[in-house]
Amino acid sequence: MIHSLTLSDLLAEHARSRPGGTAVVDGDVRLGYPELDARVTRLAGALARRGVTAGERVLWLGRNSHAVLELLFACSRLGAVFCPANWRQSAGELAFVVDDLAPKVVVWEKSAAAETLAGPGWVPAGTAYEDLLAGGGPPGGVQPDPAEVDDSAPVLALYTAAFDGRPRAALLSSAALLAHGASLLVVRQMEPDFIFLSNGPLYHVGTMMFCLATFQIGGTNVITPAFDATEVCRLVEAERVTQAFLFGPMIDAVTAANADGAYDLSSLRFVAHSPEWDAMITVDDSPWCRSKMGGYGQTEVGGMLTFLGLAPGAIGFAGRPSPLVQVRLLAADGSEVAQGEVGEICARGKSLFSGYFNRPALNAAKSAFGWHHTGDLGRREPDGTITFIGPLLRMIKSGNENIYPAEVERALKSHPAVQDAAVIGVPDERWHQSVKAVVVRSGDATADELIAHVLGQVASYKKPRQVVFTDSIPKQGHLPDYDLLDAAHGGGGYPGAT
Amino acid sequence: MIHSLTLSDLLAEHARSRPGGTAVVDGDVRLGYPELDARVTRLAGALARRGVTAGERVLWLGRNSHAVLELLFACSRLGAVFCPANWRQSAGELAFVVDDLAPKVVVWEKSAAAETLAGPGWVPAGTAYEDLLAGGGPPGGVQPDPAEVDDSAPVLALYTAAFDGRPRAALLSSAALLAHGASLLVVRQMEPDFIFLSNGPLYHVGTMMFCLATFQIGGTNVITPAFDATEVCRLVEAERVTQAFLFGPMIDAVTAANADGAYDLSSLRFVAHSPEWDAMITVDDSPWCRSKMGGYGQTEVGGMLTFLGLAPGAIGFAGRPSPLVQVRLLAADGSEVAQGEVGEICARGKSLFSGYFNRPALNAAKSAFGWHHTGDLGRREPDGTITFIGPLLRMIKSGNENIYPAEVERALKSHPAVQDAAVIGVPDERWHQSVKAVVVRSGDATADELIAHVLGQVASYKKPRQVVFTDSIPKQGHLPDYDLLDAAHGGGGYPGAT
Repeated sequence: MIHSLTLSDLLAEHARSRPGGTAVVDGDVRLGYPELDARVTRLAGALARRGVTAGERVLWLGRNSHAVLELLFACSRLGAVFCPANWRQSAGELAFVVDDLAPKVVVWEKSAAAETLAGPGWVPAGTAYEDLLAGGGPPGGVQPDPAEVDDSAPVLALYTAAFDGRPRAALLSSAALLAHGASLLVVRQMEPDFIFLSNGPLYHVGTMMFCLATFQIGGTNVITPAFDATEVCRLVEAERVTQAFLFGPMIDAVTAANADGAYDLSSLRFVAHSPEWDAMITVDDSPWCRSKMGGYGQTEVGGMLTFLGLAPGAIGFAGRPSPLVQVRLLAADGSEVAQGEVGEICARGKSLFSGYFNRPALNAAKSAFGWHHTGDLGRREPDGTITFIGPLLRMIKSGNENIYPAEVERALKSHPAVQDAAVIGVPDERWHQSVKAVVVRSGDATADELIAHVLGQVASYKKPRQVVFTDSIPKQGHLPDYDLLDAAHGGGGYPGAT
Repeated sequence: MIHSLTLSDLLAEHARSRPGGTAVVDGDVRLGYPELDARVTRLAGALARRGVTAGERVLWLGRNSHAVLELLFACSRLGAVFCPANWRQSAGELAFVVDDLAPKVVVWEKSAAAETLAGPGWVPAGTAYEDLLAGGGPPGGVQPDPAEVDDSAPVLALYTAAFDGRPRAALLSSAALLAHGASLLVVRQMEPDFIFLSNGPLYHVGTMMFCLATFQIGGTNVITPAFDATEVCRLVEAERVTQAFLFGPMIDAVTAANADGAYDLSSLRFVAHSPEWDAMITVDDSPWCRSKMGGYGQTEVGGMLTFLGLAPGAIGFAGRPSPLVQVRLLAADGSEVAQGEVGEICARGKSLFSGYFNRPALNAAKSAFGWHHTGDLGRREPDGTITFIGPLLRMIKSGNENIYPAEVERALKSHPAVQDAAVIGVPDERWHQSVKAVVVRSGDATADELIAHVLGQVASYKKPRQVVFTDSIPKQGHLPDYDLLDAAHGGGGYPGAT
């Protein structure tokens, strides 16, 4: 166990190293590291009494709360898995999660959807949760020696959307979370005085990763239930927050909420955005802020896989890999594609997830050839940086060549007269399939002009042989609904299809 | 293997991500990352043909050279262990290393000491080394798939001095080296434009750790055979070096060598030192530089275990642990000592070594109770920071209490009239042992005054019951020679002694 370091271990360290440090602020709750550690010890004892042993799951259904961190650390202490789920889901979606995860304990905030599911073992957040924790007994009670939990054990489960079916819980170990945290500490240049405001949802890796990196460096996590521009202003001033989970329109909203300068936001050390915003905050020069927070990531890699901040002047807007991972762009047969060619973004390294909970077949497919397959397409540019192309939803086979719709769609959409586009494969006697483009125009362009435009950007065999114009592309989420497109435009003959 | 990341893997990544980046500069040799990767592939092939398989050792006897990095990465590619040894050792010391490590391949620079040992399998550095490398054949030849090497396998062996016997080779894995590297990237705020000048010896962890962190972030390593103040100035200007291995007297020497301002050293972003120095360089505000590079470390923890830079305003000058380790101060029975008490500095975490090569009994002792025992004493201060007390060479048992000589010596030496002091245990009928101090005075002080002075700093049972004055303390290296002191002053009855 000498090489192991769990989230629980790090909390125990902080309790010793930072006796005066504030770990969490959440409304009236303000916990120092020793106090948080003691609460987590009691909570772990209480969970153990409810049957939460190594590998068992604990579910949180509710908004952001200090309880999310306490439950996570308590699960780490026990070798169990904690899942903060999206509480805004429908009753049907929540029922799927509860059924899929089969948690031993659910702590929940009241909602109409959750109400329909609540069973006798469910613990309401607030007083009942505090009673549960208080009943955990003194330290040294029922909880096992934390040394017996290895940091490669999954500790956090985050549900991720699936384009092609039911959601799945990505499992992240302490080792992966702390390796990812280290990469954020490097790129964001976080120090122990970092104070992070979790105004984004903690069930999403984007907020959770900064929350955990702040914990890792011994900083302070300020929790707020949900995004509210004025409340963000108030908390930044009151707690001297260094960074919040803000981008684009949220920054505009905060700027507007503080238009009269009522709040002192100068403690924020963050990205430049607009003259008004830049005048309110302290514009930061760390690689993360300097590069406008770019990169490529997904829950399955712990958050970020590549950072624009590690690639100043990059051609590819996803930048370069974190210092604890490696990336390969692979073809469907596992071979590496040449520089300049599009392949699936695949990865290895310290921050990668441990697979999806209870999905052995999917896990085998995602780790083919010993590489994690992200399901996204990318390209190495001449300077070695990576461009994210789009999701690898399906592949067209023409001649002996693989064609990814996202690459061709990207080329089509770069034409000024194209408002939207989707690409399908249609059966072809000679080539098995050929490429057909479905295009929504915003200006004048002929099919031949569009084909010529695409030819200037991708290899000839990838160009559409047919272009049809339509008024709109049917969508599934923000992506084309390829099944509907196939049905409407004669698609078929995809590799692997029977 | 999805979570594994070896030094070799990272080199392969850099070759893709940084095709235009300079990896190493060494005299006339200037290698980009793709070129270094290709050379390492050939070298790995050549080493494999000489029988270097997983776990076998390769020894470098020579000054700093790009070959040190090439041999390290080639061993990583093969799962073998590379050792850059101190080439300035005597023939007898070198013979011990060669015998202890039993390397399959030795690459060496001519020296009188090494000359006496060289055998038929020894490869002279320079032309013969280049011939060996060139004979490694094209990539894809004899070397195994790098994916088959796990990052927990030892890859680097660094010999460390032993107070109490023969030196031993501390084994560090890729996982430990890259975790330690990440902590340096955080505290030194290193970015991909970092250019490190290895003017300290690469067989020492202090230089090697910065060399590897520079490699990890994709920066440039400038190699020079040994410290020469004018050559440092020349290289800093020529290569726009960010940081060199410099402290105290070396900084003074560089300042003196550039007294006429002949060299532009402004690319150095480093610690403040003197008005002249500060005017030559760019004083850096990273935690590492801001805190005057303090902390506690040893080879066995990968370099640094704690950083003053993570503990602004700390009471304890060793600061706080890196974000990838935890520290406990333990008593001899494995229990944690209370805050304010002295115990052995023990550690767990990602950067820790894999034990000593071929020393099973020592390894078992060093990892007692599941914690790495550093052999050094420390104390948690009220703010949770750590003070380094001194080496745990032996322990005195008085009554039922453990007394560490280093702690009492530290208290004695804080008296203005004490020039040097050592503490031994003498047999005592009632208490088993009692404390006796051997003191060299530089001014007036009685035994009673010194005992009273010590009492103000440590618990009463630790105070000397006898004080003898002498002209000098016999030393072994820079530490008291306790065996001689015992013989001269009646020491004995130590716990565990027969």
